[in-house]
Amino acid sequence: MLTCQIKKPYLLLLGDVENINNAKTAFGLRDWAPEACLGQLRFDDCAADLGLRDMSPLQAVQAGAKTLVIGIAPPGGQLPSSWHPVLRDSLSVGLDIASGLHQRLTDIPELVRCAQEFGRQLHDVRHQRAKPSIGTGRRRTGRRLLTVGTDCALGKKYTALAIAKAMASKGFAADFRATGQTGILISGCGIAVDAVAADFIAGAAEELSPENSKDHWDVVEGQGSLFHPAYAGVTLGLVHGTQPDALVLCHDPTRKVLSGFPHVPVVSLDQAISVYEAAARLTNPGARFVGVSLNTSAMNDAEAGEVMKQTSLWLRLPCVDPMRTGVDQIVARLESFT
Amino acid sequence: MLTCQIKKPYLLLLGDVENINNAKTAFGLRDWAPEACLGQLRFDDCAADLGLRDMSPLQAVQAGAKTLVIGIAPPGGQLPSSWHPVLRDSLSVGLDIASGLHQRLTDIPELVRCAQEFGRQLHDVRHQRAKPSIGTGRRRTGRRLLTVGTDCALGKKYTALAIAKAMASKGFAADFRATGQTGILISGCGIAVDAVAADFIAGAAEELSPENSKDHWDVVEGQGSLFHPAYAGVTLGLVHGTQPDALVLCHDPTRKVLSGFPHVPVVSLDQAISVYEAAARLTNPGARFVGVSLNTSAMNDAEAGEVMKQTSLWLRLPCVDPMRTGVDQIVARLESFT
Repeated sequence: MLTCQIKKPYLLLLGDVENINNAKTAFGLRDWAPEACLGQLRFDDCAADLGLRDMSPLQAVQAGAKTLVIGIAPPGGQLPSSWHPVLRDSLSVGLDIASGLHQRLTDIPELVRCAQEFGRQLHDVRHQRAKPSIGTGRRRTGRRLLTVGTDCALGKKYTALAIAKAMASKGFAADFRATGQTGILISGCGIAVDAVAADFIAGAAEELSPENSKDHWDVVEGQGSLFHPAYAGVTLGLVHGTQPDALVLCHDPTRKVLSGFPHVPVVSLDQAISVYEAAARLTNPGARFVGVSLNTSAMNDAEAGEVMKQTSLWLRLPCVDPMRTGVDQIVARLESFT
Repeated sequence: MLTCQIKKPYLLLLGDVENINNAKTAFGLRDWAPEACLGQLRFDDCAADLGLRDMSPLQAVQAGAKTLVIGIAPPGGQLPSSWHPVLRDSLSVGLDIASGLHQRLTDIPELVRCAQEFGRQLHDVRHQRAKPSIGTGRRRTGRRLLTVGTDCALGKKYTALAIAKAMASKGFAADFRATGQTGILISGCGIAVDAVAADFIAGAAEELSPENSKDHWDVVEGQGSLFHPAYAGVTLGLVHGTQPDALVLCHDPTRKVLSGFPHVPVVSLDQAISVYEAAARLTNPGARFVGVSLNTSAMNDAEAGEVMKQTSLWLRLPCVDPMRTGVDQIVARLESFT
């Protein structure tokens, strides 16, 4: 069930993307899976540059690449048809293709035919091939940490990646577990829980973070927010299915209303903690917060330091910004976690 | 988007069902949409009898039937292949076919071909044809009541149907809004929210109960439970998207653990009320409970009367069992609802 078969390393396709904000998949891969990113493929009028070696599909194969990754996420999620030729070229020289777009590669007949002809794989990481199981709510061994938030798009993926990386460097047995398309491409596996049929959200989360050895940690990428009028169902299923021992609250202190939902105020952090803990305790009575991760990218150093200090005093939890301070304070809590 | 095109009246197909519990779709239709049920179609060795006139597809068409409804819901949700001939016959004499099974009619090539040949429709009410929109969380005019529960399968649909019917008989402008396959067949329209992609649960609920005139009530069939480790995500999306003004809590007083989940105790009613109200107030700050609906089918009259009385005193809400007492006490609250 787990989409766990995307072969690394990657050639990242930027094409002729005009707005570098639409290339965030490629930048996320470069930042979080640098060892997996061999090179970039850009057309003549490409605005984005990852600072990687420019390669043709053939050069990439000769350098060892296994998969061409569509590195853009344009509004609407459609693949420009002008890109089809380079995708066919890539399949013909021996690359698989992976995409996190809404439009499925497997819905484009010429790519399906071409992949069959050359014996290659097309990976649509946003879409599931088979239904996951229904959640069971049964406890399983191994430990789990889940990042949760006061809104979407404020650092839940980055926080989980930073924690998993820091844990690994300190000798923990820890795996990052991806729940969205960029995370799946970074780790090479995962389940896009927002695309699962509603009945199976918790079941997908259980499958994503299965039984493991007693001291192993799954660090699960959170999605949405329990306080989001569109996506809270995804979040609650993820909280129940993950059965987190440890929760980390992600928040942007400059955000007063939800992104794109100006009629919905952001909840207070103490209320968020209380509601998330109550929800998590349905499937793990010991669930508790071990830290707060603030996205202070809109603040200067002094402001960021002050808000982290005040937040930590208020909530009596380590408070970090993964980009400024790292996450060692949170990982330190996990070292003595019982 | 709303599956709202199933033409009535119906011929109910029971076939050769051996276990009458598997015919609950047909019994539900007979009980709640009697005016839409023209007759039943049974094979020789059928254990179930709805007390309706036995008809062949042709006799049903001559009597005015428009749609053959698969009246069984067997474990596994598969259609017996021995039933295909009678389905082809039905299409050939002019009936559409509607099914709430997991297996899609539109995945059975011989039925698809036959439907095309005779210009008939195949309705898979459990499956959506198109994606709904993302939820907005924006308030809309009209009033909404949602039934919610401490578990699955304890009377949320029956309670909503009973309330909608009682409201209509008292002159309210009220519509039952179906969120599951049996409800959709009863009302002829609705959205099976448990089959919607997780990102769209709240959006589907908004679409299901759209803006309406100020005094109009949508009475929405609840699904799952916020305290269910498998399905709570569906429930939360439905709570947020419905934006209920009024909530009715459904409960089975004899159930101490969740049905099929013996490791999960049933929550207390006061805790359920507090958590549901808090969740609902994200999108409707005025949301509040107007009653409790108990499923006392396992009790005798004296026990049932006592538990309803005690529950009503404890929670200070009208407490009914739709099958024993009707729902007039709850509807009375809605008459003075502001």
